[in-house]
Amino acid sequence: MTLLVTGWVAIDEITTPFASVQDSLGGSATAAALGAALFTDVRLLAAIGEDFPERHRKPFEGRRIDLEGLITIPGGKTSRWGGRYHYDLNARDTLFTELGVNAAWDPPLPPGWEDSQSVFFAAGDPPVQQRMMNQMPNRRSTMVDTIKFYIDTAEADLRKTMAAADFISINESEARELANTPSIARAGRKLLEGGPDGVIIKLGEFGAAYVSATDYFVAPGFPLEEVVDPTGAGDAFAGGFMGYLDSVKEVTTGEIRRAMIYGSTVASFQVEGFGPSRLLTLTREEVEARYRKFREMTHFEVDG
Amino acid sequence: MTLLVTGWVAIDEITTPFASVQDSLGGSATAAALGAALFTDVRLLAAIGEDFPERHRKPFEGRRIDLEGLITIPGGKTSRWGGRYHYDLNARDTLFTELGVNAAWDPPLPPGWEDSQSVFFAAGDPPVQQRMMNQMPNRRSTMVDTIKFYIDTAEADLRKTMAAADFISINESEARELANTPSIARAGRKLLEGGPDGVIIKLGEFGAAYVSATDYFVAPGFPLEEVVDPTGAGDAFAGGFMGYLDSVKEVTTGEIRRAMIYGSTVASFQVEGFGPSRLLTLTREEVEARYRKFREMTHFEVDG
Repeated sequence: MTLLVTGWVAIDEITTPFASVQDSLGGSATAAALGAALFTDVRLLAAIGEDFPERHRKPFEGRRIDLEGLITIPGGKTSRWGGRYHYDLNARDTLFTELGVNAAWDPPLPPGWEDSQSVFFAAGDPPVQQRMMNQMPNRRSTMVDTIKFYIDTAEADLRKTMAAADFISINESEARELANTPSIARAGRKLLEGGPDGVIIKLGEFGAAYVSATDYFVAPGFPLEEVVDPTGAGDAFAGGFMGYLDSVKEVTTGEIRRAMIYGSTVASFQVEGFGPSRLLTLTREEVEARYRKFREMTHFEVDG
Repeated sequence: MTLLVTGWVAIDEITTPFASVQDSLGGSATAAALGAALFTDVRLLAAIGEDFPERHRKPFEGRRIDLEGLITIPGGKTSRWGGRYHYDLNARDTLFTELGVNAAWDPPLPPGWEDSQSVFFAAGDPPVQQRMMNQMPNRRSTMVDTIKFYIDTAEADLRKTMAAADFISINESEARELANTPSIARAGRKLLEGGPDGVIIKLGEFGAAYVSATDYFVAPGFPLEEVVDPTGAGDAFAGGFMGYLDSVKEVTTGEIRRAMIYGSTVASFQVEGFGPSRLLTLTREEVEARYRKFREMTHFEVDG
């Protein structure tokens, strides 16, 4: 089957307490597409500018990623983001955001992509996401991610987009803000009332929680001794989650739980290198080995 | 078997965003003893002052708690603590701490208590804890908890106490401080090098992690829609953990994992009421039902 991933392909400037990188390949769609391509065929829909370096195109090639939707906008500038992480890597300051080609991008779907079975919308303009959804009527699974910017500037449209999604993924602090409650459990339930089938609340280094009308599941954080760069962890999670889910015969509660762990697994690799660098060498065997470690570290018996 | 619990029995003044209570029964040993008594016979070793209200003694009575070690110090004042929680209940300010009888308390062990099989030391003066340890040579399992105050003022002694313990329990932020690393996984490993068999890192609403030379286990936070008062959650956790462990025939990795979940279960009830009020009505049946929910929310299969 096929997963369409849309969002930003960007150029990042990242500073952590330990190092910094410039002109690094970044963007939400980058991490999600590379993570998902470990599991299924991916269609990447994103806009770049004429300044996009050829060397940043290479990482996408030779994988299960169709690049027909990676469009160079004539005269356009690639989106850029700069951020600096605090000592414990749990907080960061955005230093700058240059929207570039993503300022007003309303992408046409490449011919034939209307039949995409699964779609991941990384954080983006909700009305644009709705128009894209309408062009892909045969979606089996759709996930929408968002960020504080759209909660603050486009809440009503965002809620419509979320209502049309099967899954939404959102950071813990943003979930609390959007649901107006300090309780993660209650935030999950309130967001569920908005229409999606399942809500994924991302807990950073503490993992992720899945809430649906009939299920509650927690994936723990993987105990990494060294985190190099947390950028893109949430998008890599979404890529692993949606990539795995696209590959299964039927979307069941059990498969969703496995997708949560595959997403967590891919995210745990993503943060081991700057930008998406670790995903470029990641193999499915490594993913499976860490997936089993997730099971080992959460398993317990009810009876002694 | 028998678990000795020692720490503070105190009087608290607590303000949350939703309510406040005064002259409330509090203290680390209170939550731990009440939590542990659901599983095993508890010996409570704590000092109170002549001002300790008779109504605060009642909650300990009629349970599996031996009160021979709850000593009234002539002319002494009961310890008092006041705190105010922030909106999301994850952070709090200590408004005052009155040490009272705990300023210089070096408790004599009641006759016969030397044979205690399990011991939980709530946060306290490390040299006093070491003297107590020496009086109980037959300990099968010993847990030491600590707080920032002792890390900052008595680090060398604290490390000696921890080395003599089987388990240490410590908050995430304190673990990072004591181990001087932002990584929880590395903090766990570094604290392990200090001598204990297992390190429990408490993650607040995100659960708790257990680290040993051969095991890594994560207990998730329980998804409560309403947290009334987080005070004592860590001590209730320790009570559930040590109470369960004291009740088992042999301390195995599997039993330690189960103890992690029982501890998390008791802690999740503790925060449902002000002070220890919820523990006073808690039944073993309720504990078992929630324990099974913990399993439901973490279980997944490796193969589809």
